[in-house]
Parts: sequence; C-alpha cells; structure tokens
Amino acid sequence: MKNALLAYLLLATTTAFCQSKDLKVNQQRIQDRILGLSQIGERPGGGVSRVAYSKADIEGRTYFVSLMKKAGLDVTIDFAGNIIGRKKGKNPTKKPIAFGSHIDTVPSGGNYDGCVGSISALEVIEILNENNITTEHPLEVIIFANEEGGVIGSSAIVGKLNPKALESVSQSGLTMAEGIRAIGGNPDSLIKIKRKKGDVAAFVELHIEQGGILMKENLQIGVVEGIVGIEDWEVIIEGAANHAGTTPMNMRRDALLAAAKLIVTINDVINSYEGRQVGTVGKIAVEPGAYNVIPGKVVLGMEIRDLSYEKIWKLFREIETKAQKIAKATETIITFKQPFTPATPALTDKAIQGKIIEAAKSLGLTYKYMQSGAGHDSQEMARIAPVGMIFIPSVGGISHSPRELSKGVDISNGANVLLKTLLAIDKN
Amino acid sequence: MKNALLAYLLLATTTAFCQSKDLKVNQQRIQDRILGLSQIGERPGGGVSRVAYSKADIEGRTYFVSLMKKAGLDVTIDFAGNIIGRKKGKNPTKKPIAFGSHIDTVPSGGNYDGCVGSISALEVIEILNENNITTEHPLEVIIFANEEGGVIGSSAIVGKLNPKALESVSQSGLTMAEGIRAIGGNPDSLIKIKRKKGDVAAFVELHIEQGGILMKENLQIGVVEGIVGIEDWEVIIEGAANHAGTTPMNMRRDALLAAAKLIVTINDVINSYEGRQVGTVGKIAVEPGAYNVIPGKVVLGMEIRDLSYEKIWKLFREIETKAQKIAKATETIITFKQPFTPATPALTDKAIQGKIIEAAKSLGLTYKYMQSGAGHDSQEMARIAPVGMIFIPSVGGISHSPRELSKGVDISNGANVLLKTLLAIDKN
Repeated sequence: MKNALLAYLLLATTTAFCQSKDLKVNQQRIQDRILGLSQIGERPGGGVSRVAYSKADIEGRTYFVSLMKKAGLDVTIDFAGNIIGRKKGKNPTKKPIAFGSHIDTVPSGGNYDGCVGSISALEVIEILNENNITTEHPLEVIIFANEEGGVIGSSAIVGKLNPKALESVSQSGLTMAEGIRAIGGNPDSLIKIKRKKGDVAAFVELHIEQGGILMKENLQIGVVEGIVGIEDWEVIIEGAANHAGTTPMNMRRDALLAAAKLIVTINDVINSYEGRQVGTVGKIAVEPGAYNVIPGKVVLGMEIRDLSYEKIWKLFREIETKAQKIAKATETIITFKQPFTPATPALTDKAIQGKIIEAAKSLGLTYKYMQSGAGHDSQEMARIAPVGMIFIPSVGGISHSPRELSKGVDISNGANVLLKTLLAIDKN
Repeated sequence: MKNALLAYLLLATTTAFCQSKDLKVNQQRIQDRILGLSQIGERPGGGVSRVAYSKADIEGRTYFVSLMKKAGLDVTIDFAGNIIGRKKGKNPTKKPIAFGSHIDTVPSGGNYDGCVGSISALEVIEILNENNITTEHPLEVIIFANEEGGVIGSSAIVGKLNPKALESVSQSGLTMAEGIRAIGGNPDSLIKIKRKKGDVAAFVELHIEQGGILMKENLQIGVVEGIVGIEDWEVIIEGAANHAGTTPMNMRRDALLAAAKLIVTINDVINSYEGRQVGTVGKIAVEPGAYNVIPGKVVLGMEIRDLSYEKIWKLFREIETKAQKIAKATETIITFKQPFTPATPALTDKAIQGKIIEAAKSLGLTYKYMQSGAGHDSQEMARIAPVGMIFIPSVGGISHSPRELSKGVDISNGANVLLKTLLAIDKN
C-alpha cells in the first residue's frame, strides 16, 4: 500500500514533469490559423481591416468561436461581446486562470497584433487536450471585444467602461452601444459582467512587441513589467502674427520659433534621464500659416509615457519650467492643458514575471524585462487580477500596418512560454 | 531793359524759392479725405475691406476719380484699370514725373496702407494748384489697380504681368481678367499700356512703413533704399511614422524633431549676420499628425528676404548645409524646393534718395535709410524709371489689419517730403 502510493506519486510527478518538459505547441497549426484569420477582412494591397463590430470582425469572431468549440471549450458571448471559452478544472473551488487577447484590428492593420495571442491561447487548450491534461483551476480563453477602439471589452469586464463611451461612434460607423449589440452583447447589462478583485486567479496575455527592441537586440521573449501610463498635453504658444517682410528679426514674437525650441527641449528633457520613458510631440498646428506671415499661434499635441506616474510628472514639471524660460526669451505665452483622461500605469505581477522567466529559461530562450508602451487589455485586467504579459519580436518594430510581421518560430516560442507559464500558475 | 530782366529774374527766383520753402500740404484735407475713403467698404468691427475689383473698390475708385477731376486733373483709366490723373507741364518735351500708390486693400485691412500715398499724391496737386505752380515736367498721379493681389496694375504698366495671372481668381471672386473689366480696363489690350525705360522721368511713392522701426526709433521719415527680394522654399523633412508608445527614444526618426531643430537653425543663421535680412518659417504641416504617432513627414514653408540677392543665397546655402547635418543626426531626409517665382530685389534711385533726404532736412524731420520688406508698385516701376520711396511711421508696426494707424502729423510730414522731392526732381 505504501509502495503503491509511492509508485503512484512517483508516476504522477514524473508524468507532470515530463508533460511540462515535453509539451510543445504545434507551430504549423498556429500559423495555419493565423493565416485563416488573415483571410477574413483581407485587403487587396495586403494586411487586414477587421475593425471591431464590422462585418469582417463578426466573421472573424464566428471563425474563432468554431475553433473554440472544436477544441471542446464551452463558449459564451458576454454582454460586452467578449468571447469566453471555458475549460473545467479539477478543483471547482479555484478561481479561473484567464488568458487571451483580441482579434479586432485597426483599419488597414496587420495579421499579428492580437491574433498571435488569441490563436496561441487556443493552441494552449489544444495541447492540454492532446495530452489529456486537466488543470486544477478552470481555464478561460478570453477574446476581448474592440481592443483597438479603446480596450472596450476588458474595461467592461472590470467595470470601468465609461457609460459615455457607449454613445461614441466606433471605427465601424456604429456607436459602441450599437456595435456591442451587433456582436451579440447587450450594452444595457454591462454591470452584470463586472468581475471584482479575486474573481480571476490570474490573467496572462501573449502579444507582439509593437516595437523594435527585441528584434534589434536579437532576443526572443519580452517579460513585460507593466503597461505604461500616458499623459497628454495640449500646448498653446501665443506670439504675434506679423508681416514676415517688414518685421525685423529683433521685433518678432514668433510662436513657431518658440514651439520649435520647446519641441527640441521636450526631447532633451526626456533623453536626459535613464530609463524607458518616451515623450512625443505628434501634432502641430500654426496660425495663420502662410509663407509671408510670422506665426501668431501654435498648438502642439504632446504626450509622455512611463511605468511610473511620478516620473511622468517629474519630466513634465521640468519641461514646464523650461517652457516658461523659452516663453520669456521669445516674448510668447506658453500654456499647457490636459484634454484627455490620462491612462494610469498598470504593473504586472512579480510572481508571474518570475514564472515567465522560468518558462523562457527552460525552453532555452533569451529574454529581457520590458515595458509595454502601447495599451492592452492586460492593463484593465490588472485592476482585478495578477497579470502577466509576454512579448515576442515584431520585425522592424512595425505594427498597426499591413507590414506587421512576427516569424513563426517567434510565435511558437511565445506560445510555449504562455503554455508553461499557465501550468506553473496552475500549480500554485 | 537790362534792369527789367534782372528784376524779373530776381522775382522769379524769389518766388520759386519762397514757393518751395513755404509750400505745405493741408493736413486737415488729407485726413478728411482718408476718412472719406475709410467709409467706403467700412466694416462693422472697424477697418475696411476694399478688395480689388469688388463693389467697394469700384466705389472707392469713383470717389477718387471725382477728387482728381475736382483738382483739375485729366483722368483716364488705362487697360489694366489703373487710374491716371495728368497735369500738364511747361515743357512738353519732358517725360512725366509719376507718383501715387493704391486704394485697394486686403480683406479686413486698414485705412492707411496705400491710401496715405494716394491721397497725399492728390494733395501735392492741390497745393501746386493753390500756388499756381506749373512744373516743367508733366505730372501723373497713378492709382494702381489691385496692388494687394500682386501689384497687378503696375506689373501691367511695365509689361511684366504674366498672362496666366489673368486666369487666376482674385480675392473678389472674379478672375483677374474679369476684375480688370469690372473696373473699366481691358485685359486683352494690356500690351498697349506697356511703358519702356525712359517713358517716365521718375516715380515716387509715399507709403506707410508696415513695420515698427520708425516708431520704435522715434523717427519721422524712412528713405527707402530698395524693396527686398523674396525667395521661398518648401522644405520637406522625411522621417518614419511610428508608435509613440512602443518606439524607444533612440530608435526614432522623428520628422518634427528634425523640423524643430531646423526652424531654430534657420533663425540662428539669419540672426548671425549684420544687416536687415529676414527669414521666416510661416507654415508647417505634419503627417500623420496624432498625439500617439511619431511624425513621419513635415513640410515647412520658409522664406528669406533681403535687398541683396547674393546675401539671400549665401544665407540659404548655410541653412542648407546645416540642414544636412540635422538630417544626418536625426536620420531624416531634408529637401528644399522652390514652388514660387522669386521676387528680385528692386533698388531705388540714389539721386532721388538724396532729394528725399534734402526735403526731410529742410522740413526739420528726422530720417533713416530703410529697406521695404513688403512688396510695392514701386518695385515694378523701378524696372522702367528711377524710383523714390518715402516711408512714414505705422503705430505699432501694424498693417493689413483694422488696427493699422498712421498719425495725421506723420502723414502730412510724408506728404510734404513727397511734394518737395517732386519739385526737386522737376528742377533737374
């Protein structure tokens, strides 16, 4: 009896060990399914437009649901239109481990942003099925609705979707509310899908990097420490419009010259600190805007992103101080306004980061800690659950473009790390 | 007989001397007539819109013609629509001395740009009439048509109006050709009004400064050395549009950052030389132009003005060299194109400059040599005749604005200098 138990335990341990050691995703199946998705909403010139709530989005969702069902998942569409595929766990008292991503795209987008994480999440289920593995925790593959339109589906799940957002018009031409109905949701019942802290054991998302760091440094896995916060400022620079021929250089109050000095200063301040913070001036408008008139007014669109809220504001305060010096020197008036709701930084879970690293190491993959400069559904899920995020390389750092590309081997590396990470979380 | 002749000569000399010494314009009449003009095309919020070829322009021209006729001038409208008021001279073999300006305005313009010179030219005739003075040369008061639309009337007189310009749409909504017909000209016969070198003895224009130099330096008269040349460049800066969140600072090819450095450099280069050159970046457009996208392309509108063509190009060559350094440092491509026909510098006549200075001195007025940074009909007339140009102060250097203002005493000072300068030219 004692020996029998020992033998059983030894067998069980060995099996689990072997399972975890030998389990590998099927790269070909992942690539075939990414190809399958890429044909839905395909554009003549390349790339794909599967804008949330559009006909192509609905078609893509149908394709994905059929794959989920084939994989034996119990599929439901929640009131926000999120697709949730459930697989039972051994222990019904445990909270589900969730993983997934999104399959909607920007207009004229690529085939990897969102799809890599979605197809790979399904692949994890396939591998568990093929190896007859039932996890302790129940599993949930979540395909979030309308990620590209502002992480709408995940915001709804965590109860943070602003009701006003429902009235705004999405890229599909429908309002968010109409769009949610179009994909089988019910915007009036969103409150019912709200999950609170503790409802989900963990959430893990595999995603393409959407930057060029991994590829440049020839690394295979990015261990995401967090999703940056974003603060935007509208910068108004007021000088005096005047005749460009008759106004001597020393009598000018040139708003564009002041703006140019400020743009250079913003870049200098951002670069003057160690770290991964980024600062961008992406918009500029000048009045009156003619060859022969000294600019009287300039409006800039500026943003700063970092994992630390405090750092963002430290950088901004320094920019603000230097801006006032520029204003004085150029006899202009510079003011800063914040037109949008800032996105607060979302940190991933340290323990899950560790499991991602262990998984990468066990697979012999190179990795580095990274931040996500772009927004993801994980940032919302981090409000209610410990979150992990895995990046794989994007060729040339290109995303939101038909030229977006992740190599098959990089995708399967990421999917294997996802698989091992989930199993490690399940063991806890 | 000998004594009689001597007495006559003495009398004539004394009369001429006294005439020139005592002749003064009637400031009140000038101001009244400027006020009269200001009521035609008056705008509710102040200022005036007497855009060339418009109803208000035609009304203003009718008012001016009636004043000319009252002053005994022989008035004709030439084929370009220029109003020409002739007063006979004693010596029919002499070529006419011409003087005048324009009465059309920019949309929402002021009451002094052009009007000061036009009303003052008429005032010179009034004073000559009141003092029974007949000059040796015939006199021509010319009110040029459509100065603000590109010195159209004066270009036609010197035979330099591009036939293509006739098809372009003027501010009035009419094509130039239609506009010329509307004010009594004939666009098909412009060749007939062409004057050649030697046809005009001299041309003198009194004008407001349209800059703030005279007022700032508390001076009364500007002796214009010339009208600056203008060279325009479209500057194209090509970088790489990319995600503002995921692209690290050291992996960016930010076209707007490069443009900002270039704008600062242009200003530095222009300011690094002694002189009155001006350089302006008045236009900027950025693509794609969003808060969260690193700018991929920027197009600037830049111009340089100076009296010396060589200096303009020396400055440009230096800017171009420095631009290539910026391009290298920012990994962008910077190219320069010239979309417009440059305006070549037009120098005024040294002898007439001397007469303007003599006139100012004799009136006890302070003066300085200046350049005109703005274009004027004088620049066209300089192609066929020795030209003089007199500036008077603009309050605050403001022009092309309802707030444009020149003080009555400054205007009459200018008109007195014009009168004395014309008499001095006539004596030669």
